[in-house]
Amino acid sequence: MLAQSIVDESTPTTKPAAARTIRVGLIGLGNVNQAVARLAPETERLSGAGVRLRVVSALVRDVGRVRRCPRPARVSTNAEGFLRGHYDVVIEALGPIEPARTLVARLLGRGVPVVTANKALVAAHGRELTALAARRATSFRYEASALAGVPFLGALAERPHVADVSQFAAIVNGTSNFVLSTIEHQRSSFDAALERAQALGLTEPDPSRDLDGLDAADKFSLLASLFGWGDVPATRLEVRGIGGLDVADLDAARRTGHTIKPVVYGARSSSAIDAFVGPALVPLGQPLAALSQTLSGIQFSGRFVRDLFFSGPGAGPEVTAATLLDDAIEAVSTVRRLRKTLPPLAAPVVVRSPNTGWFVRVQFPGVVPDAHAAQGLFAAAGLTVVSTVDGSVDAQWLSVAPMPPAGVQRALAQLRHTHRLALHAIRRL
Amino acid sequence: MLAQSIVDESTPTTKPAAARTIRVGLIGLGNVNQAVARLAPETERLSGAGVRLRVVSALVRDVGRVRRCPRPARVSTNAEGFLRGHYDVVIEALGPIEPARTLVARLLGRGVPVVTANKALVAAHGRELTALAARRATSFRYEASALAGVPFLGALAERPHVADVSQFAAIVNGTSNFVLSTIEHQRSSFDAALERAQALGLTEPDPSRDLDGLDAADKFSLLASLFGWGDVPATRLEVRGIGGLDVADLDAARRTGHTIKPVVYGARSSSAIDAFVGPALVPLGQPLAALSQTLSGIQFSGRFVRDLFFSGPGAGPEVTAATLLDDAIEAVSTVRRLRKTLPPLAAPVVVRSPNTGWFVRVQFPGVVPDAHAAQGLFAAAGLTVVSTVDGSVDAQWLSVAPMPPAGVQRALAQLRHTHRLALHAIRRL
Repeated sequence: MLAQSIVDESTPTTKPAAARTIRVGLIGLGNVNQAVARLAPETERLSGAGVRLRVVSALVRDVGRVRRCPRPARVSTNAEGFLRGHYDVVIEALGPIEPARTLVARLLGRGVPVVTANKALVAAHGRELTALAARRATSFRYEASALAGVPFLGALAERPHVADVSQFAAIVNGTSNFVLSTIEHQRSSFDAALERAQALGLTEPDPSRDLDGLDAADKFSLLASLFGWGDVPATRLEVRGIGGLDVADLDAARRTGHTIKPVVYGARSSSAIDAFVGPALVPLGQPLAALSQTLSGIQFSGRFVRDLFFSGPGAGPEVTAATLLDDAIEAVSTVRRLRKTLPPLAAPVVVRSPNTGWFVRVQFPGVVPDAHAAQGLFAAAGLTVVSTVDGSVDAQWLSVAPMPPAGVQRALAQLRHTHRLALHAIRRL
Repeated sequence: MLAQSIVDESTPTTKPAAARTIRVGLIGLGNVNQAVARLAPETERLSGAGVRLRVVSALVRDVGRVRRCPRPARVSTNAEGFLRGHYDVVIEALGPIEPARTLVARLLGRGVPVVTANKALVAAHGRELTALAARRATSFRYEASALAGVPFLGALAERPHVADVSQFAAIVNGTSNFVLSTIEHQRSSFDAALERAQALGLTEPDPSRDLDGLDAADKFSLLASLFGWGDVPATRLEVRGIGGLDVADLDAARRTGHTIKPVVYGARSSSAIDAFVGPALVPLGQPLAALSQTLSGIQFSGRFVRDLFFSGPGAGPEVTAATLLDDAIEAVSTVRRLRKTLPPLAAPVVVRSPNTGWFVRVQFPGVVPDAHAAQGLFAAAGLTVVSTVDGSVDAQWLSVAPMPPAGVQRALAQLRHTHRLALHAIRRL
């Protein structure tokens, strides 16, 4: 009778084989939870577990807002009233950290399973809420909080060999990936690609957090926390945006057998984390290079399992809702028999910008010198050029041997000053 | 007290938070389970759940065989004696179907969780054993039975939206993928590539089941069963091997923006399954094209989640062992609260060979005609040529518009007869 002591006694008793009504509470009823309410009847059909999903209550900021979904039995702005309800599982898609954290903690404290799509909440308080759920023998699930269309966090959470991650590279921002893909494949300008993303509803009202890499940096923090790498706030990361790139850069990259992708990269040793967030040259033979449009994906390696790669659709309301409902089904259908313990949180470590190769666009104020001359200027500034691409009438691209970003930036600053060159450097993955 | 009624009462009672010894039984002690015995101490360290894994017994065919692993407390050829043991989980890596099926069924019948790497067992009896495990409120897990290095079956088993798969394409045979990759990247002959695979220990003693596509066809059956597509025995599939391909074919494919991969493909509609197993042209931009050497992977789409892609290392003993141990940890650390029901098994459906484009190597007995003339011969035989590649001194490659394989084969037979052409056709994915 192992499980007896850890099952939430407030859960209604039922024979396991009988059809069962799952009482669902929704925190927030925006685009994502509206899609949850629309998809819930499909989940019944698909789950094959004889469950009936019933959205019994939704906590909202504005009761009067027009919504495209079946209306839950109760819709209210009253948090205390919502918390008094009886739920088999609650789905949180309200954001930001507060009041989500307080609501989730109170529900978990009562033993109610909670699933969330709230990236900020999981990055800042995921471990604390997971520990609380473990103490109360309930579930806290967050597959939708990172790469919402790609179910990989479940495997990491439960499978210790796979979860021993020491290195990863990922595309986590669908807007940036869409913009770069559109520039490359539609041969459009940066602004036209962004307008297209906006017209398709792929951007936030203010797209700058996506384009500047800040959203991706938040996701790095979330992944680092889930991998047990410790608390790595986005402010400690080297973050670059995709601004300033155009079709000539992508063409030049392709002539060297690469494409340019908005990447987050991390590698963990015992003493440090090497990390960066920003556009990078990715060899065309790598799976990340195959992710176009809004696809997102992650490649990771550890001691036991190398070169795992998971990818899938970028997050939209329907994709995120399907993931939340899958989490909800897992949360109500399984119970832990051993208490879940997260990987020990690493001591604070140094976060460094790694040495990588660089791909530098060079534009000259007047006459364009030949590749040999450009190489000479770079060598004089301390940069070792390994190859050159003549790309367009007014620019060249030079591949520079691996060195730290500070050294590159110093050399480029000098070249801008002494030769009035326009220079733009991105990393090579 | 939901879970009380479904927990196996024979499992030793323990406080969930306390450190706990997990008693592991091994069925078979070949290369895979030797690796399990070697890795088990690492699993303890990684799991963070305060578990101690102890291999208490192994059932073997030959006690005297030399093995590279810590010796389990008991090693015996006596099946009845083994079955009388007390286990928290049993790991089966004996193969083939019998006696594995009988042993696994008896253990599950007693409520003992079982994990397996046995592809034939899961393909033939996976549903029956899963149902038995559900009736006895225990676990039957088989992540290592297909794409052993890629944890994707867990997500499919527990997540109904992701599991609603209507189409997939996969590379499931590491030997075939290694041979084609080596031909392409090392520019070696087929035989030299195969010798290299054998020297690296990547092949079975008789590699023909790998090279002829029969192993891949078995994996199709397994995947179709797990997707709820019904019982599709390998004998009903169109199966081709990779024999006869050489570096000129791969070069010609690359000039059209493709590579050649050993693929299994399936698409399910309400009335039929379109399927094939064999080498196929894969566009270089697709993630499957990025899987070289022994990597394996699967792309799948359904109604809710499109273009998911999971890939990872091909199976070797260490990779398979890590997956089995991760399954074992999941099996002992969670218990189902709702009874697991598999997707309804589909009624028998028609299995068809799909219409796809074709890529045909043409070799002439004497003088090589120009592309225009070759195109004319094909057109006269009823094949619509959409493009041509002049590849080498004695061969051309023609891309043929989509048509059923029977039509292609008929036309090629006619051309062989009337013009004494040597012809070799593969599909385009």
